[in-house]
Amino acid sequence: MSKILVSIVMGSDSDLEIMREAGKALDDFGIAWEIDVTSAHRSPDRSADYAKKAADRGIKVIIAGAGGAAHLAGVIAAHTILPVIGVPIPSTSLNGMDSLLSTVQMPGGIPVGTLAIGKPGATNAALLAIAILANSRPELREKIRQFRAEQAEKIAKETLAS
Amino acid sequence: MSKILVSIVMGSDSDLEIMREAGKALDDFGIAWEIDVTSAHRSPDRSADYAKKAADRGIKVIIAGAGGAAHLAGVIAAHTILPVIGVPIPSTSLNGMDSLLSTVQMPGGIPVGTLAIGKPGATNAALLAIAILANSRPELREKIRQFRAEQAEKIAKETLAS
Amino acid sequence: MSKILVSIVMGSDSDLEIMREAGKALDDFGIAWEIDVTSAHRSPDRSADYAKKAADRGIKVIIAGAGGAAHLAGVIAAHTILPVIGVPIPSTSLNGMDSLLSTVQMPGGIPVGTLAIGKPGATNAALLAIAILANSRPELREKIRQFRAEQAEKIAKETLAS
Amino acid sequence: MSKILVSIVMGSDSDLEIMREAGKALDDFGIAWEIDVTSAHRSPDRSADYAKKAADRGIKVIIAGAGGAAHLAGVIAAHTILPVIGVPIPSTSLNGMDSLLSTVQMPGGIPVGTLAIGKPGATNAALLAIAILANSRPELREKIRQFRAEQAEKIAKETLAS
Amino acid sequence: MSKILVSIVMGSDSDLEIMREAGKALDDFGIAWEIDVTSAHRSPDRSADYAKKAADRGIKVIIAGAGGAAHLAGVIAAHTILPVIGVPIPSTSLNGMDSLLSTVQMPGGIPVGTLAIGKPGATNAALLAIAILANSRPELREKIRQFRAEQAEKIAKETLAS
Amino acid sequence: MSKILVSIVMGSDSDLEIMREAGKALDDFGIAWEIDVTSAHRSPDRSADYAKKAADRGIKVIIAGAGGAAHLAGVIAAHTILPVIGVPIPSTSLNGMDSLLSTVQMPGGIPVGTLAIGKPGATNAALLAIAILANSRPELREKIRQFRAEQAEKIAKETLAS
Amino acid sequence: MSKILVSIVMGSDSDLEIMREAGKALDDFGIAWEIDVTSAHRSPDRSADYAKKAADRGIKVIIAGAGGAAHLAGVIAAHTILPVIGVPIPSTSLNGMDSLLSTVQMPGGIPVGTLAIGKPGATNAALLAIAILANSRPELREKIRQFRAEQAEKIAKETLAS
Amino acid sequence: MSKILVSIVMGSDSDLEIMREAGKALDDFGIAWEIDVTSAHRSPDRSADYAKKAADRGIKVIIAGAGGAAHLAGVIAAHTILPVIGVPIPSTSLNGMDSLLSTVQMPGGIPVGTLAIGKPGATNAALLAIAILANSRPELREKIRQFRAEQAEKIAKETLAS
Repeated sequence: MSKILVSIVMGSDSDLEIMREAGKALDDFGIAWEIDVTSAHRSPDRSADYAKKAADRGIKVIIAGAGGAAHLAGVIAAHTILPVIGVPIPSTSLNGMDSLLSTVQMPGGIPVGTLAIGKPGATNAALLAIAILANSRPELREKIRQFRAEQAEKIAKETLAS
Repeated sequence: MSKILVSIVMGSDSDLEIMREAGKALDDFGIAWEIDVTSAHRSPDRSADYAKKAADRGIKVIIAGAGGAAHLAGVIAAHTILPVIGVPIPSTSLNGMDSLLSTVQMPGGIPVGTLAIGKPGATNAALLAIAILANSRPELREKIRQFRAEQAEKIAKETLAS
Repeated sequence: MSKILVSIVMGSDSDLEIMREAGKALDDFGIAWEIDVTSAHRSPDRSADYAKKAADRGIKVIIAGAGGAAHLAGVIAAHTILPVIGVPIPSTSLNGMDSLLSTVQMPGGIPVGTLAIGKPGATNAALLAIAILANSRPELREKIRQFRAEQAEKIAKETLAS
Repeated sequence: MSKILVSIVMGSDSDLEIMREAGKALDDFGIAWEIDVTSAHRSPDRSADYAKKAADRGIKVIIAGAGGAAHLAGVIAAHTILPVIGVPIPSTSLNGMDSLLSTVQMPGGIPVGTLAIGKPGATNAALLAIAILANSRPELREKIRQFRAEQAEKIAKETLAS
Repeated sequence: MSKILVSIVMGSDSDLEIMREAGKALDDFGIAWEIDVTSAHRSPDRSADYAKKAADRGIKVIIAGAGGAAHLAGVIAAHTILPVIGVPIPSTSLNGMDSLLSTVQMPGGIPVGTLAIGKPGATNAALLAIAILANSRPELREKIRQFRAEQAEKIAKETLAS
Repeated sequence: MSKILVSIVMGSDSDLEIMREAGKALDDFGIAWEIDVTSAHRSPDRSADYAKKAADRGIKVIIAGAGGAAHLAGVIAAHTILPVIGVPIPSTSLNGMDSLLSTVQMPGGIPVGTLAIGKPGATNAALLAIAILANSRPELREKIRQFRAEQAEKIAKETLAS
Repeated sequence: MSKILVSIVMGSDSDLEIMREAGKALDDFGIAWEIDVTSAHRSPDRSADYAKKAADRGIKVIIAGAGGAAHLAGVIAAHTILPVIGVPIPSTSLNGMDSLLSTVQMPGGIPVGTLAIGKPGATNAALLAIAILANSRPELREKIRQFRAEQAEKIAKETLAS
Repeated sequence: MSKILVSIVMGSDSDLEIMREAGKALDDFGIAWEIDVTSAHRSPDRSADYAKKAADRGIKVIIAGAGGAAHLAGVIAAHTILPVIGVPIPSTSLNGMDSLLSTVQMPGGIPVGTLAIGKPGATNAALLAIAILANSRPELREKIRQFRAEQAEKIAKETLAS
């Protein structure tokens, strides 16, 4: 069994539909991951505790998804030295613009690398985590190259089908 | 010496120019207050600790000002049962729209009563705190009535001076 | 029968779907409340009259929900010394951004503590009202602590179900 | 001495720099006007009273300028049957976008004819008032035609000077 | 048969669903109106011609509705001395924010009194036109007062039904 | 003397500071141009007339710059079959967002090719006009290639100077 | 068989529903075109290669549609001297505002003539391409005039049907 | 001499004032870096070439800053398998909102981890790069812990100075 390298956390179980895209992409690259629901606001101590212990448990990257006044990624980042990647979840009223600004506009000192709002962001959060892991795992580099080549080839074929 | 009833916290000492407006308004009503700089991201444990202990120290209302991905009010609210009032600080690039959305768009469960961006918001944060305190302090109610009357009178006089 | 402590007002009966979330939360805490439809624009005298008399009737907090050029909370706040809490109702064209700015951007002098757009905002309006009331009602403080604990526990369980 | 036909009101004397553009344009057309400072929030009874009495005093159009959560035009409109014209004043943080939405997004039932943010809006508020008055004052129609012709001519000359 | 006093124009027949709200309100006040489809961009000469002749045909107010880069009200206003009232039509991609800014942000010199985006704006465009007409038609003033009273009464009754 | 191929129009002489960037770029490519001030709103007949005659005068591309409710490019496009290129001028209150949406969100049927807000947009308007002209002027193609090469080289040198 | 003069490219086959509007308009004018799917990000070399070879293949105008961080038109423009026309595709979360800004806000040096978000933009991209081609094809000029006349006539008839 | 691990690229030398904040932070952690000016639009081949060769040269993370239609980070990411971190540069007209959306809203398949607009974003880009490098460099982990502790301590001291 593989060691878990990437942790996915989200502020509510309603975010699962978006965040499972991150899990799918990690699966495609054979990277073991875990998922947890924890809220920056409703379970703050648990969120802080989770973040503080992640590095010692061998986690290498944390992906955090939240919507609205989306503080989860920032709170996680405040309590860990690991790279933290944020996914703004689309919100009911403002379409995720609030989630995006709450996640990306962090003050100097505590970084959150933020991806696009919604599913493309969740997929890319996983791909960024994989690129980070690949820095010390040459076999992952090769897999990314192959993924990129297949992706480009798929685009080229779409033309024919149009 | 009066007991401190209102706590003002802010995420950076650069927020002081805005937040001192809250202090001025509290002074006008003779309400004792304290001020602290603590960051949701850069000193998260201190922020949580501050929030957790405030009620037992006799604080009745916490006013929190922050800019950008403004998580301070939300983090404070997550760790206290006191009423928390948020002041969005104007941000360099987005004029405080990011601060506003990060403060106001809290998920159901943890409320932050949010005021306007910048100085009018800081003044009104104090006035809202005073209205909250006035619920069990009749002499404050009388002072608010007087403040309102003077305010209306001042407006009426502005016309003559125009 | 309990004395009514919280008043909920809204600008149109179409806002009821959102604002009843506030009523539900107040019910959960055993707080008696009343609800009224009154418009800042279409029934301005009635709105002013309502606000002027609320304090003497024993109301402690007024929650006001409105959409579009959402002036109701501001008009109520102008006519009462009670703490006023605003809920921006999602609007047809601009998703509640107009409601939010019209409610929160009050000038210094008359505060409206504003919550999130829509249902989370209505729920949190009630929770903020409860936190305000709890300042002089120790039994409510205990209830809030219990609510918070249950809320955190519920989040923790969501992970297992994911 | 001419009878006053147009009333200009504004929420704060700091709005005077913008609103005097309306006065200038009315002067150019020889229309008598008055100006008043009254706030929807800080002097609400005075604002309502002013609006209620305007029609009987012979006023034909009310121009109202306010910034931020700009409720003045709406409050005036709620208390008069006269045509009300709104001028959104540029706000410190959000450049008048809040003022615009608070003024223009009125619910069906109480209209506010809204002009552009700032000085062009104040000028045009006067010009719209003049067009309204001109409906029953043929000599004003002639003056508008002349103003338009001179304006077009001035534009044509600007090219030569470029 | 009554003389037509108000003209409603719109940029596309797809705007009819919104703009007929203006017609309904005019009908309620017994004011004769006409409606036309003419585009600032696709039939510019017809639009200009329509605007130029409206005053001489006895029209007193023109209501113009358009969406997207909504130039119709501005083009009409450029070619008439009549009061022109603009209704921003909700647009497919930007929810009418483009329509609103294109209609309201007119340069000093040519005014367009702008109402809310969509149906409330169309209703209020008619009500503003009626308020303009009422300046020289006392019987209309009485009707507006009655409409306002009924409107306020209807709001008061909504509470009971809630 | 070269034949004038490109016309630059702008809604106000205050737009000249921006629009002269277009002139500079045309000069760099040796293309003769003319400039005119004409307003969609304040001199509508002149604007329409100008647009209608441009093609017969040998103009090949019209560049139109305007701010606020920026209708000039759309009005010009409505009256000519030539390619029309729009430059949104930065506006006082909304930084050109209103100018951009008013220029670019044209309805299907009348196209305006829109460039960036402000000076980069004016420069690029000229470069797009040149690319259009180059379709039937091979010597211009060569000049564009040279311009592009110099531009890339300049960027490369900036690194050394950093 | 006609020579292909216009190339339509799009970043994903999901953009086809929008971009086929461009193809329809080109068909109406009898202009031969080709369509291709190529992504600025997922198939960057293919996109660059496509752009570099287009001019030599006789293409006169390239229309590029993309959504989100819509870089396709900019990447194409960077690699060709042909006129490039951009169509912002509506995006899931931000309704195409991201697509619009990513396409239109190009830096001085590389122009992209941008049309409206979505279908009207795709139609107008084709019409702008046709206007560009018409500069050296008099028979196209005549067709545009006829199209414009029919379009104006159709608008006039819509009134009757309303 | 240390091996260069982080590359900073920017679209224009005017971005240097912002991007040097990233260099400062890397210096504080003793990490060797290089800086380059290369434009996604004006020197596209050089940008692609730079990205393609970076991994083989031993670079571990690329930080890319650009403004407006900010394509640089996306173009770099399209041509490398390394983790790419984007910094939106404040833009003249839209305050960096265009830069932010152009950088962050990448389609699924090519990730760009985006930081805040302007200087805080540049600082955090370096800190995120350091966190990434620290995954396989334990001594860096220790340095981050120390930096975080000093940062928290500094905040605590700010209170005293207020």
